[in-house]
Amino acid sequence: MNTFLKTAVETVRMKNPLVHHITNYVTVNDCANVTLAIGGSPIMADEALEVAEITAMSQVLVLNMGTLNERTVASMLLAGQTANEKGIPIIFDPVGAGASQFRNQTAKTIMENLKCAVIRGNISEIRFLAGIASTTKGVDASADDASSIEEAQQIADQLATAHKCIVVITGATDVISDGRRKILVHNGCPEMSRITGTGCMLTSLIASFCGGFPEHLFHATTTAVLTMGIAGELTLEQTAGTGSFRIALIDEISRIDRETLLLRGNYLEK
Amino acid sequence: MNTFLKTAVETVRMKNPLVHHITNYVTVNDCANVTLAIGGSPIMADEALEVAEITAMSQVLVLNMGTLNERTVASMLLAGQTANEKGIPIIFDPVGAGASQFRNQTAKTIMENLKCAVIRGNISEIRFLAGIASTTKGVDASADDASSIEEAQQIADQLATAHKCIVVITGATDVISDGRRKILVHNGCPEMSRITGTGCMLTSLIASFCGGFPEHLFHATTTAVLTMGIAGELTLEQTAGTGSFRIALIDEISRIDRETLLLRGNYLEK
Amino acid sequence: MNTFLKTAVETVRMKNPLVHHITNYVTVNDCANVTLAIGGSPIMADEALEVAEITAMSQVLVLNMGTLNERTVASMLLAGQTANEKGIPIIFDPVGAGASQFRNQTAKTIMENLKCAVIRGNISEIRFLAGIASTTKGVDASADDASSIEEAQQIADQLATAHKCIVVITGATDVISDGRRKILVHNGCPEMSRITGTGCMLTSLIASFCGGFPEHLFHATTTAVLTMGIAGELTLEQTAGTGSFRIALIDEISRIDRETLLLRGNYLEK
Repeated sequence: MNTFLKTAVETVRMKNPLVHHITNYVTVNDCANVTLAIGGSPIMADEALEVAEITAMSQVLVLNMGTLNERTVASMLLAGQTANEKGIPIIFDPVGAGASQFRNQTAKTIMENLKCAVIRGNISEIRFLAGIASTTKGVDASADDASSIEEAQQIADQLATAHKCIVVITGATDVISDGRRKILVHNGCPEMSRITGTGCMLTSLIASFCGGFPEHLFHATTTAVLTMGIAGELTLEQTAGTGSFRIALIDEISRIDRETLLLRGNYLEK
Repeated sequence: MNTFLKTAVETVRMKNPLVHHITNYVTVNDCANVTLAIGGSPIMADEALEVAEITAMSQVLVLNMGTLNERTVASMLLAGQTANEKGIPIIFDPVGAGASQFRNQTAKTIMENLKCAVIRGNISEIRFLAGIASTTKGVDASADDASSIEEAQQIADQLATAHKCIVVITGATDVISDGRRKILVHNGCPEMSRITGTGCMLTSLIASFCGGFPEHLFHATTTAVLTMGIAGELTLEQTAGTGSFRIALIDEISRIDRETLLLRGNYLEK
Repeated sequence: MNTFLKTAVETVRMKNPLVHHITNYVTVNDCANVTLAIGGSPIMADEALEVAEITAMSQVLVLNMGTLNERTVASMLLAGQTANEKGIPIIFDPVGAGASQFRNQTAKTIMENLKCAVIRGNISEIRFLAGIASTTKGVDASADDASSIEEAQQIADQLATAHKCIVVITGATDVISDGRRKILVHNGCPEMSRITGTGCMLTSLIASFCGGFPEHLFHATTTAVLTMGIAGELTLEQTAGTGSFRIALIDEISRIDRETLLLRGNYLEK
């Protein structure tokens, strides 16, 4: 992992991967800006008449369920089929899975019909995908679902193995598993949950790194998780409230470099 | 009112009410962030297939007409019916009422079919709802509608009495009426109208406080109006332009506390 | 041009033109905020049932293809017909033209059915509209399309002459042509392309100035381009990353005045 971190950011900035997002209208501007901040090139397009073409020219596809509707769900499936056919990695963010039958059904349809490369969610969303009873509180993790780190690891392993993909559960400690390998990340700060979109932004960072490293998705995903956590910590030292926290977070992502990742990265490979 | 202010913010932060928004895509990110800043938990969902479920799990529902379309109007009515059946307060923001037949008809349909707990608008929008001739300039109050404070109070009283709800008219002086009680708030600053979304953000603050105090909607609404106005004043002292004004405004909302409310709240109970 | 700059900003702030936007959900908040920052009044409305009415009460119409879909394309055509009938200038931003058949077809339909007053795009988008082979990379200009300044001027002249409109090609040097007159603007900085939406924001600035000066669209457009470039330069001197760059950019637009325009404007009339 350490070796990977030495070139990760510079490589993404050089390769400038095109990241096709079908995402929600709440955090979409932040997602575009963090994609640019890390060195990717965002394109947001959700019309069924064009998504296959847009995906085909992209290096990676983000499917984010934040404010889905019938029209965009159809577009997600079309874009996802193109991505699977062309070997373009899909990064799936099941926002609010568990919160409504429509979200549950959409998450299921995506999991059954598409091969996702990475799935990122909070513990409530990932429990739902893994078929484990979960309570949910809207789009935030429910306190009732707070699992021990051991349990979160089990759930991540199980879902990753079942779907042959990488699973990221974000929380106080982030868990990244591909079923064989596992990394725990201890970076980040609780203040990140006082602004909207840190989950969505991380998903866009994962996509940007995966777009730059299609052959090293596990390390690319971990680098994104480290970047987000470290940026949060650096941000905390300088902000006066949640408005400026969000802005400084994007500043720090735009300034992240190999030295900072190596110096501050706090992770455990298991 | 003073007694209420002593525990209002702390209570909302502890209760963390879930605030379902069906709102516009212009200011939605700011609405989510101010909801979090004051201690609520925002969920944005506008698909007809899920809104009833999402409303049912929420403590309060925001209906904001900012960028409505036929699809979302149908969702507003479905969500609103659920809210009324379950006794969940509806906070209605008739953005641009008076500006088009479609907005006028939608506002009328909502007023006739749903029982709203709080209606917040500028003087042009509220004049329209009250059936008084109004000119409108897009989504901003028309200078031609500038009423004397006395007239604004009359209109607020009349609409509040007719619909058995709380009416908030925002302007240089904000008027809050439930038909029996009335409060004038003198906080705020003109610079708040040089950024988009201060009206929408206030609506989300009202919703957050009402979600935390379903039995005290009048005082909850007033606390939200005070919070917004005081945050605007505090922001003014530190910003270099309208971009940083918007960010510092969210900062100040995230830092508001009982001491600030008691010290700076400038209101008159009538 | 110099004479025009002496009153341009003050006039827009005084006239406060209403700017109807049919635009994308990625940068819409920034577009609303820059419109307010320069002195316009933004209204975003894309429902076919109301766009004709909203356009009719506005001073200018923005059509931005950022996240178009079948529903909003129909609304763009309806709004555009009203604008043409009433002599309201249309400012067209063909975001991503060249990137998909759907965008290409939409751009073509707009160009064939509506008379646009100003078209603003990057070199890839404008090459596509001019019928010249272009590669495109999502919504950003492709490096392969980087033209010499001479070639960009030719393309702008050709498109402006063919459609009797003003064409703006933004890049390291911005080119503004109405087929007879031409201005090159050397303001701006590369950092502007590290945030999303500077193109969309410029389009909204152009609309605001054109709404204030319907009889002087060429000079109004140039003033908007100068404002954006100068704001970018001023911003660069004070920011810590791309998050705060975006906020300071809006600050600087809100503070621009005649002195700054006259002092820092770096342009060549040809």
